[in-house]
Amino acid sequence: MRQYDILTLFPGFFQGPLSESILKRAQQRGFAQITVHDLRSYAHDRHAIVDDRPYGGGAGMVLKPEPILEAVANLRLEQETHLVLLTPQGRPFKQAIAQELVEHHHLLLVCGRYEGFDERVRALLAPDEISIGDYVLTGGELPALVLLDAVIRLIPGVLGDEESARYDSFVDTLLDFPHYTRPQSVKGLAVPDVLLSGDHERIRRWRRKEALRRTQVRRPDLLQQAELDEEDRQLLTEIDAEEENG
Amino acid sequence: MRQYDILTLFPGFFQGPLSESILKRAQQRGFAQITVHDLRSYAHDRHAIVDDRPYGGGAGMVLKPEPILEAVANLRLEQETHLVLLTPQGRPFKQAIAQELVEHHHLLLVCGRYEGFDERVRALLAPDEISIGDYVLTGGELPALVLLDAVIRLIPGVLGDEESARYDSFVDTLLDFPHYTRPQSVKGLAVPDVLLSGDHERIRRWRRKEALRRTQVRRPDLLQQAELDEEDRQLLTEIDAEEENG
Repeated sequence: MRQYDILTLFPGFFQGPLSESILKRAQQRGFAQITVHDLRSYAHDRHAIVDDRPYGGGAGMVLKPEPILEAVANLRLEQETHLVLLTPQGRPFKQAIAQELVEHHHLLLVCGRYEGFDERVRALLAPDEISIGDYVLTGGELPALVLLDAVIRLIPGVLGDEESARYDSFVDTLLDFPHYTRPQSVKGLAVPDVLLSGDHERIRRWRRKEALRRTQVRRPDLLQQAELDEEDRQLLTEIDAEEENG
Repeated sequence: MRQYDILTLFPGFFQGPLSESILKRAQQRGFAQITVHDLRSYAHDRHAIVDDRPYGGGAGMVLKPEPILEAVANLRLEQETHLVLLTPQGRPFKQAIAQELVEHHHLLLVCGRYEGFDERVRALLAPDEISIGDYVLTGGELPALVLLDAVIRLIPGVLGDEESARYDSFVDTLLDFPHYTRPQSVKGLAVPDVLLSGDHERIRRWRRKEALRRTQVRRPDLLQQAELDEEDRQLLTEIDAEEENG
């Protein structure tokens, strides 16, 4: 069983997310144990102070180094632990990093807050640092949950249906193809005929083509990174011709 | 007051996050009203079914179009509403999009699940579609919270200290400079002298230089997009010289 520890100033934040959906199921079925730890319990002064003003002045507060150092020393499990700080300074999270992190049997996730970590935490702990995107968030709590969700769904057996994971966007760096379900017509919009044809090969080809088309329109950057085979190049030629003809 | 509605199959997911930290404070102080709606209450068959198998076969389930169409019709407020689907197919979320979205006084956020939305939801509603990153998540709940956190902290008045927002990573597309707080020495590691000097101009210059250095080392892609002035170019020259000398 994999073990995930979260160190945070807001333990209550995790109550809903850990009690719903895949994070709950993975715990119930014994694939993962997720434990939330209150960073404040590692501050030993009378007021349990975890932050202080920055040297050199300026706005905002900085997380004091000692509570984090003590918490990590306490929660670390020998050599097995992979320590991750959630911070905008980190390497940009991508599906490939989720696939890398699922190999670790113990992740210790430390959520930043305020202006962030005292620099000496980095120097002393040499943590992995991860950012979930180029936007400013209030703390590392949501990033920790995003990382956990992406990683835990990759643990073998957690997803009921192995295929579900395989076709998702980003696994082969293409966006997903369009999906349709009942009813056959919605406000005059019908399901494409090919999907009703029962011809599996035609359906497979149509889906691949539409995934390519969507990626080309919406995320040309992903298409450039994708490994395309001969059929893909043929489909892209067809798409170009169709777009030219309006 | 800005209004944020979330449409989800997992209302319980939001309990912790909306009761903590900035999302709680923004609501208490009257800057934002956040309401969570259960998509299942818009499914009118006996079992409140919201998903169905995909036309054309394959694994996974697709969100049925009618409950979403009805919910959106119900929750939309005249022309004011900006409708957002959280989906991996969307435009990549960035700080600039948060700044764009805070201008809308009503956001209606629809969380995807399973294999995603029936394509006709896109065709009929022409929603804004947003992805928080190139990784596979179980649903749109965490992305909705990420978006809300990034947007709500930009509402004027929500952050106690205006400066706090200004210096954060990504606002000027550089990573943040290193922060230090007490004690002055931690396990033999001291605070850099300059931060103790009281010389505000030297401190400002040092921080800018270290922000540039960190961005150059960790995220050269961001440095390329940054608007650099003459001082920045001078600092980068100094950094290059220092790196060459080891």
